[in-house]
Amino acid sequence: MSKVLITTVPFGDRNRLPLELLEKAGIEYLINPYKTKLTEDQLADLVGDFDVIIAGTEPITEKVLTRATNLKFISRVGIGLDGVDLNAARSKGVKVSYTPEAPSPAVAELTLGMMLTLLRSVHISNFKMHQGKWERIYGRRLTEVTVGIIGMGRIGTHLLRCMTGFGKIRFLVNDIKPNDELDKEFILEWVTKDQIYQEADVISLHIPLTPLTKNLIQREQLLSMKFDAMIINTSRGGIINENDLYDVMMQGHLSGAAIDVFENEPYTGKLLGIENCLLTSHMGSMSIDCRTKMETEATEEAIRFLMGKTLTSEVPQAEYDVQSQGL
Amino acid sequence: MSKVLITTVPFGDRNRLPLELLEKAGIEYLINPYKTKLTEDQLADLVGDFDVIIAGTEPITEKVLTRATNLKFISRVGIGLDGVDLNAARSKGVKVSYTPEAPSPAVAELTLGMMLTLLRSVHISNFKMHQGKWERIYGRRLTEVTVGIIGMGRIGTHLLRCMTGFGKIRFLVNDIKPNDELDKEFILEWVTKDQIYQEADVISLHIPLTPLTKNLIQREQLLSMKFDAMIINTSRGGIINENDLYDVMMQGHLSGAAIDVFENEPYTGKLLGIENCLLTSHMGSMSIDCRTKMETEATEEAIRFLMGKTLTSEVPQAEYDVQSQGL
Repeated sequence: MSKVLITTVPFGDRNRLPLELLEKAGIEYLINPYKTKLTEDQLADLVGDFDVIIAGTEPITEKVLTRATNLKFISRVGIGLDGVDLNAARSKGVKVSYTPEAPSPAVAELTLGMMLTLLRSVHISNFKMHQGKWERIYGRRLTEVTVGIIGMGRIGTHLLRCMTGFGKIRFLVNDIKPNDELDKEFILEWVTKDQIYQEADVISLHIPLTPLTKNLIQREQLLSMKFDAMIINTSRGGIINENDLYDVMMQGHLSGAAIDVFENEPYTGKLLGIENCLLTSHMGSMSIDCRTKMETEATEEAIRFLMGKTLTSEVPQAEYDVQSQGL
Repeated sequence: MSKVLITTVPFGDRNRLPLELLEKAGIEYLINPYKTKLTEDQLADLVGDFDVIIAGTEPITEKVLTRATNLKFISRVGIGLDGVDLNAARSKGVKVSYTPEAPSPAVAELTLGMMLTLLRSVHISNFKMHQGKWERIYGRRLTEVTVGIIGMGRIGTHLLRCMTGFGKIRFLVNDIKPNDELDKEFILEWVTKDQIYQEADVISLHIPLTPLTKNLIQREQLLSMKFDAMIINTSRGGIINENDLYDVMMQGHLSGAAIDVFENEPYTGKLLGIENCLLTSHMGSMSIDCRTKMETEATEEAIRFLMGKTLTSEVPQAEYDVQSQGL
């Protein structure tokens, strides 16, 4: 009998549908008993004789794959593949699918909420108010600032679309593959990342974590931003160097940051001590509808695999190439 | 020489233009020396022989007007007129102007930011993270909920416009004067306030404080809302009964509230103790551009008055009628 390890948590929590699909198909499953993001060692110990992992962002490394003697398929709940050593998986005959579309609207809405919050210092005022301090803080409006978006894929595009109702906003955008089609829908300035760092008032990242984007934004890039710029990361931890962000903000550079993703999660690092750093617990995809869609799609793909049916959302070759390119 | 009392603070802080206009016109001015919202008594003591007040939201009551023996003109920085006893002013020959357009975009953007924050519990996660607690909280997206807007004037309409890029959202709207024109631009369901209380997941208020709206939302209305509904007030304090909101939320009813305006400001009341109450310090209009526009428009109107020129933004008769109707 096939056994599925569900490592991502929470799972099936607000909507049992994905669990019911497994039960109906007669598939045995175990949900991550640690109830938090697994470390490499925890996962290596746990993975035993499971045939399939329905995976979160935990590290599915060569070490884990070597211990997973029965593993044949990884179904990623979500889009980021930085946790999975794709080429090691392939060399062991393990296929990988993912759910690239489902999280986009939820991540985009969270990002825009964070952008409006930073622009108006809502998080700072909320802190002060709860401490009994009344202080009217000046802010800025979206149409008065320059918005920089690095990564114009599904989420970056959805974010742009959410902002179309605000009026005319100046957008500086960057992507490794500029997409002409977007110029039909939006007024965009395709520029270098350096120009975004230097000219944008609010910068949002919507790129995967790869060897090329690891530590993309370090002290040098942060210091090249305007003194009162704001940066938002709802993509992946490790793209902004957290220690550098801490140092730079402690120096008084940047007027705010919103960080949803961290190099090590759960995060317990120094940024907790910075009041104008808006922090959330990797909640980009955590809207009930998107989360259910992701979990259900990943589960259906796992069932298709176990039933010997054609997969519908296998990770494309380009993702393997990105990982093998290295730095 | 004419003397102007500027009661609203901050004023000319991020952009000195309004102060420069007064100086250039040779008009003497005093900025509220208390640097916080004046009480009736403070204002009555301060108003002395000033000819004009460039006013905030402080109470310009009959008592104040009686003490203001030289007063001829009140120029309100902003839209709400609940602080000004319009009919008492008229009976003493004091004219009143305001700046109804300028604050709308800033209030609408703050409101939408609060809405996205409440929907995703960003404020709760931020509190927990800064306390070192990692907890992935489920949320909802705008297109998955029903949004109720009470008051479809300038701000309510601007808010709707900001949301047009998100996709199809169900809007329940209410106004004392439904505006057919809006149906050309948006898909709206014009309903009663009671229907909004009962059916909406997120409710936002964009109405003035008048005898008719004072305590509009009390225990009964709050309890008629869904158990996990969210309410946002960026309009005026006193429209939602704060004690009732506190009691209802302490009972566990409503999943969140965002309150920017209070019956008594600066606010120091019980809502400070409720973590899922997002609180800000009357910052709706506090974007640099809108604030500068409001201050400049109100100052230009004051100068026009003092120069004997035609006023361009006198408060219309309807506002006097609203105040004299009473309950």
